[in-house]
Amino acid sequence: MHRTYSLRNQRIPTASQIQNPPPPPSTTKSRFFGKASIASTFRKNAAGNFGPDLARKLSQLVSTEKGVLRSLEVVAYERRAAARQLSLWGADNDDDVSDVTDKLGVLIFELGELQDQFIDKYDQYRVTLKSIRNIEASVQPTRNRKEKVTDEIAHLKYKDPHSPKIPVLEQELVRAEAESLVAEAQLSNITREKMKAAYNYQFDSMRELAEKFALIAGYGKALLELLDDSPVTPGETRPAYDGYDASKQIIMDAEAALEAWTLDAAAVKPTLSFHQTVDDVYDDLDEEDDQMVPEGEWVEEEEIVEEIPEEEEDDGQGEEEEVEEESEQQHYDDHHVE
Amino acid sequence: MHRTYSLRNQRIPTASQIQNPPPPPSTTKSRFFGKASIASTFRKNAAGNFGPDLARKLSQLVSTEKGVLRSLEVVAYERRAAARQLSLWGADNDDDVSDVTDKLGVLIFELGELQDQFIDKYDQYRVTLKSIRNIEASVQPTRNRKEKVTDEIAHLKYKDPHSPKIPVLEQELVRAEAESLVAEAQLSNITREKMKAAYNYQFDSMRELAEKFALIAGYGKALLELLDDSPVTPGETRPAYDGYDASKQIIMDAEAALEAWTLDAAAVKPTLSFHQTVDDVYDDLDEEDDQMVPEGEWVEEEEIVEEIPEEEEDDGQGEEEEVEEESEQQHYDDHHVE
Repeated sequence: MHRTYSLRNQRIPTASQIQNPPPPPSTTKSRFFGKASIASTFRKNAAGNFGPDLARKLSQLVSTEKGVLRSLEVVAYERRAAARQLSLWGADNDDDVSDVTDKLGVLIFELGELQDQFIDKYDQYRVTLKSIRNIEASVQPTRNRKEKVTDEIAHLKYKDPHSPKIPVLEQELVRAEAESLVAEAQLSNITREKMKAAYNYQFDSMRELAEKFALIAGYGKALLELLDDSPVTPGETRPAYDGYDASKQIIMDAEAALEAWTLDAAAVKPTLSFHQTVDDVYDDLDEEDDQMVPEGEWVEEEEIVEEIPEEEEDDGQGEEEEVEEESEQQHYDDHHVE
Repeated sequence: MHRTYSLRNQRIPTASQIQNPPPPPSTTKSRFFGKASIASTFRKNAAGNFGPDLARKLSQLVSTEKGVLRSLEVVAYERRAAARQLSLWGADNDDDVSDVTDKLGVLIFELGELQDQFIDKYDQYRVTLKSIRNIEASVQPTRNRKEKVTDEIAHLKYKDPHSPKIPVLEQELVRAEAESLVAEAQLSNITREKMKAAYNYQFDSMRELAEKFALIAGYGKALLELLDDSPVTPGETRPAYDGYDASKQIIMDAEAALEAWTLDAAAVKPTLSFHQTVDDVYDDLDEEDDQMVPEGEWVEEEEIVEEIPEEEEDDGQGEEEEVEEESEQQHYDDHHVE
């Protein structure tokens, strides 16, 4: 990860990186293909050239996300093709290979289907970003108007300080400023509301997709155990395959696990090393983890907490948020009867 | 998931599906773009047209996986572009939006980097599939030779039953059959060994990528909590942003969590509803889960077990595998000092 913790600064190599330069870039990646398509390059460049200044950068992001979406569609499509071909290849082989490849095909096909569902949600995230872009575009004229009137007044005051137009323009400026204040407040509120909604939605969909992929990979590994990989000598015949019930059961278990999955039952949980902030919701998770951590690591965590005392002593904010967090906590507990 | 549990059979609609036909396909997906590229369509068709018959189907799969790989590269590339654009857009905004978008950019950029690592591993899986294709291609000539000699003998016996060539050819057939026996045993052994290795490798890489994506999504959600989304009235200024330490800490926590992740510490685990098979390794996981399941669900699981008594009574095979599984179990316990 970027050592500077920002994408805006150039990454400065550390002493150890200078001593041990990073390995050369992967040779398995094509230098000419596999980069952004011509269409997406054009789309990205074109997006910034039209529309109000204020909305240009976000327009580019919205366009790039369209590219992510389209490439994800290709991946999903090709995954399903690969699943079918795996199943067809296996059909010509012995019973065990045939059954396992067919069932693996079902699981890999499901990866493609899940990815398609994720793509629909990713599009929803993109649409929410667009609504920020739209408010940005609509705020631009009010900024322009205020600026224009201010310029006109300055120009008149220099050319003809006693012009009767000046009071009229000054009244117009007051109105423009009032409109601008409202517009900027709307921009500020909607940007935050929509940004939070868009990325929360994206991250929730990502958690769902990721955990379901991890589940499928686990069931796939269980299927592979049914493969009889003990070597045979020439002329020896393998014992008859009797894994049909087991392989079908694995697929049924996988199906049940995928259907039962909810965000509340998510297995992967981030651990945060500070408390008493708006993220109190993670507190109890931290404590649960601490009980399992051997002594050495626990000492390390205490040190991190001491490094950021501002967070620890920020009692005022923490208490303000506690009521809200408690209700979230109860909601969480409702789903975890343990 | 496919109700027939096979990719080879056409899916037969159930009574309820006929009554309630499925919703029309998603409208967010392009009908003309986003499908397989022209290059990958050509690659796929071309792959099956050359080389020995036996290796054709697997050649197609290997080519399709190349397409998956290339599309994944595009996704990774565009994800990183999106991360940079998000960070740049945020830089023009207020302090809180600016800091949170920059840090979100760092996390999303990391998604692209992780995906690149996955792509290298996916290529390794593809290379392993290729080695099955190669043994298939090398076995084809021995099959052809055996067939050719058999045909020649049959032809001669019909045309000239007393030809002195027949005993010579019969001796050649014995040699060809011996060679073929060895080749077929090699094919059988290598196919299973490599297939198991290839898909185990793919599924392990997938679990790693998926759990790391889920982790990043969790930290991303924590970052969003730092955004001050309480609405302001026109003219009101927002309180100064003081989340710099918290956001940096979240990135550091995310980095630490990603670095600490190992397959042994994987959080997402499949639960299988049968025991006493080669998959005994999952037994203890099931039992751990059962302790947390409320009574209602537990009854349901017992019913599933009763439905497949063949698996439950398969004692012989289970005991054979126990020694091997126990050593794996110890390996597992070594990493979980709790």
